[in-house]
Amino acid sequence: MGRIVVDVMLKPEILDPQGQAVRGTLPRLGFEDFTDVRQGKRFVLSVEGEVTDAHLARAREAAETLLSNPVIEDVVDVHELTHDEPEQAAITGEGAAS
Amino acid sequence: MGRIVVDVMLKPEILDPQGQAVRGTLPRLGFEDFTDVRQGKRFVLSVEGEVTDAHLARAREAAETLLSNPVIEDVVDVHELTHDEPEQAAITGEGAAS
Repeated sequence: MGRIVVDVMLKPEILDPQGQAVRGTLPRLGFEDFTDVRQGKRFVLSVEGEVTDAHLARAREAAETLLSNPVIEDVVDVHELTHDEPEQAAITGEGAAS
Repeated sequence: MGRIVVDVMLKPEILDPQGQAVRGTLPRLGFEDFTDVRQGKRFVLSVEGEVTDAHLARAREAAETLLSNPVIEDVVDVHELTHDEPEQAAITGEGAAS
């Protein structure tokens, strides 16, 4: 089974209240390093078999028509989820310990 | 300015109603290729100057404590946003044409 990642972010000029809420909370938890936070969406689409260029083209189409609102959002990346990219195997918490 | 990406997904065993809603809509728009959809969150944290290992370590901490709910979510990836990764430069729509 192949998987395709679609990353969607608000356009830079669009106010991001969720990101701002996170940004405001970080210093109160002791995280002083981060000057800005933007929050977006990440979709993982599964396909049968290997991911083909046709699948990626279809995913880009779906990203434009359904997964994002082109008025306020940009599709910033569409790529195959490769095996060297950790996914659904947590890099933190219990998953990382096992 | 450096940027760090934090990807958060629901744990595989957790029901994902947003992903299921997308999954159910795709065929109605003519997208028959996709067998499953999961929807997660993508954060982009900005830091002053270059991204250091210390920044990445702090971002992992923030990912565990604030950006994710460890009961139902996994932090699947924390990495520096590199220049060859498209970001805030849309790969679709007007941005791609210019």
